[in-house]
Amino acid sequence: MEENKKVKSAKISELRQDLITGDWVVIAIGRGKRPGEFVKKREAYPALSDKCPFCYPEETGQEKDVLVFRRGDGDWSLRVIPNKYPAFSRSQPLKSFEEGPYFGMSGSGYHEIIITRDHTRQIANLDPIEVAEIVDAYQDRYLNLMNKRSVNYIEIFHNHGLEAGASIEHPHSQLMAIPVVSPGVELELTGAEIYHKRSKKCVYCAIAEWELRNKKRLLFENDNFLVFCPYSARAAFEIWVMPKSHKPYFERITNEEKIDLGEALQKAAQMVWRTLEDPAYNFYLHTSPCDGKDYPHYHWHFEILPHTATWAGFELSTGIEISTIEPEVAARGLRKNI
Amino acid sequence: MEENKKVKSAKISELRQDLITGDWVVIAIGRGKRPGEFVKKREAYPALSDKCPFCYPEETGQEKDVLVFRRGDGDWSLRVIPNKYPAFSRSQPLKSFEEGPYFGMSGSGYHEIIITRDHTRQIANLDPIEVAEIVDAYQDRYLNLMNKRSVNYIEIFHNHGLEAGASIEHPHSQLMAIPVVSPGVELELTGAEIYHKRSKKCVYCAIAEWELRNKKRLLFENDNFLVFCPYSARAAFEIWVMPKSHKPYFERITNEEKIDLGEALQKAAQMVWRTLEDPAYNFYLHTSPCDGKDYPHYHWHFEILPHTATWAGFELSTGIEISTIEPEVAARGLRKNI
Repeated sequence: MEENKKVKSAKISELRQDLITGDWVVIAIGRGKRPGEFVKKREAYPALSDKCPFCYPEETGQEKDVLVFRRGDGDWSLRVIPNKYPAFSRSQPLKSFEEGPYFGMSGSGYHEIIITRDHTRQIANLDPIEVAEIVDAYQDRYLNLMNKRSVNYIEIFHNHGLEAGASIEHPHSQLMAIPVVSPGVELELTGAEIYHKRSKKCVYCAIAEWELRNKKRLLFENDNFLVFCPYSARAAFEIWVMPKSHKPYFERITNEEKIDLGEALQKAAQMVWRTLEDPAYNFYLHTSPCDGKDYPHYHWHFEILPHTATWAGFELSTGIEISTIEPEVAARGLRKNI
Repeated sequence: MEENKKVKSAKISELRQDLITGDWVVIAIGRGKRPGEFVKKREAYPALSDKCPFCYPEETGQEKDVLVFRRGDGDWSLRVIPNKYPAFSRSQPLKSFEEGPYFGMSGSGYHEIIITRDHTRQIANLDPIEVAEIVDAYQDRYLNLMNKRSVNYIEIFHNHGLEAGASIEHPHSQLMAIPVVSPGVELELTGAEIYHKRSKKCVYCAIAEWELRNKKRLLFENDNFLVFCPYSARAAFEIWVMPKSHKPYFERITNEEKIDLGEALQKAAQMVWRTLEDPAYNFYLHTSPCDGKDYPHYHWHFEILPHTATWAGFELSTGIEISTIEPEVAARGLRKNI
């Protein structure tokens, strides 16, 4: 009987607060899944009925490339083209309109695709220096578009796999230059400013410092970047890639930093690929808006979200994501596969 | 040549602002899809290897029912049971904890399942009065839990279909009583308060008034409720069900209003079921927190999100959802199927 009294009730779940935004996530560990149970190979794509449009972009009636990188032999290694089916287009001048109490504006902007040469080699399978070249293209296009009329935010992201919303299998990233500041980034900008007022410190620098010291969620580091699972992960195996020192503006990244970022992103993608056995995933850049204002307290970073769960009624309603593995346990699994 | 000059560049997309939160959505209409092109029958469930746990909840080792409604013949028509795999549990006392700069707390709370009798009849196929009975159970459990220690918000939601996160096919809703206020509702509470300060008016009442007058997104109305596609829909075929008059607190719903809400929810589910041919969907209640504060400017409502799209890198990063049909066009399609 004494034994029974000592049995503690098992831990079922905990709420963790996002240090930046104040939002919450639930880590539901009641079922105690191990990293291997999250393996979720992405769906196969249907066979192509025609040539891949990203292997031969010049044959698809696209507008001309806006950027091409070439190898020594003259063949291209990376190209950037306008999206044939844009969500934002410069052909629509920026106009606002009203309907009753409501407000809207035309989808004026730019929507581009950043394509790497090889149809079958995803980021996890590229050389780090090839990923640095992708970063180079991100920066080039960013600098080119950031001062265009009516561009206030530039969103750079990468969808991998059907379940993650990539309708074309050929590896590619996307860039959308849009007239409004992303609400997702605005929450972080506000949180970072509040934290700085209170603590005289950048909240992302505080996170970097803790994760580098504490190490239990740290996955990789080099001179300029750290790769880690965030404390309040929104999805199982979420990973952040962040500059170690305080950097508000992605577009100011140096050549040396690009090399290190290429390595950090490649390692992160490789750990995800090996641990979850080629899952679908998304990653995206969060950086300061280009709306003419200064954001000295912000700190740019990449967030990587493997497609490990379905966000259902609870998540859609509350904005509180439920994940079923502790980020520390996910990190242990990922580190084994570096 | 004169002809050519008159050709206006085709409209590709527009940004619409959420009147309540200030967030944005993109309506990308460049490809001009018609309502019929969104048909997305939900996936079939794998065959059950054993008895359905919700047809025979007493045989699954669940804790006892917390609520049972019975028919004239004594058989049950609806029952509420604690979730066997809870995300929040009262077995965990509310404790907060820290790790370095971070903050968290135990997942203390309640997690219940509201089950209707028939394994095969989803809400679209129930009689309106049977849906009113579900609403009755929502209210009953809400009133029972709202004053429990450490409960500050009660989330009620319904997942239908595998793609929408329902692991069990038998129709059921869920209730989670949680220690924090939902960030999703907090954005609306803040927006509603700001709007009221500026306009001396409830923002939801302003919306109801406009939609009832303008009618192009209106789907159905009875004495107490309106059913409509919101101006800034986050997903194709999103529907809201809202009281016509100003109501901050769901738990104060009257018997007469429950009858009308049952009818409104059933009609909404039926339109979705017929138009998209039995898609997966989620719906959920947004109501004032039960944290002891007053929320005179809030206005409760249900939001229904058919599973019509994948939220990919852009949506996950920015919080701006891209939908590919104008809510007015979706409404025309839905109204044909009432």
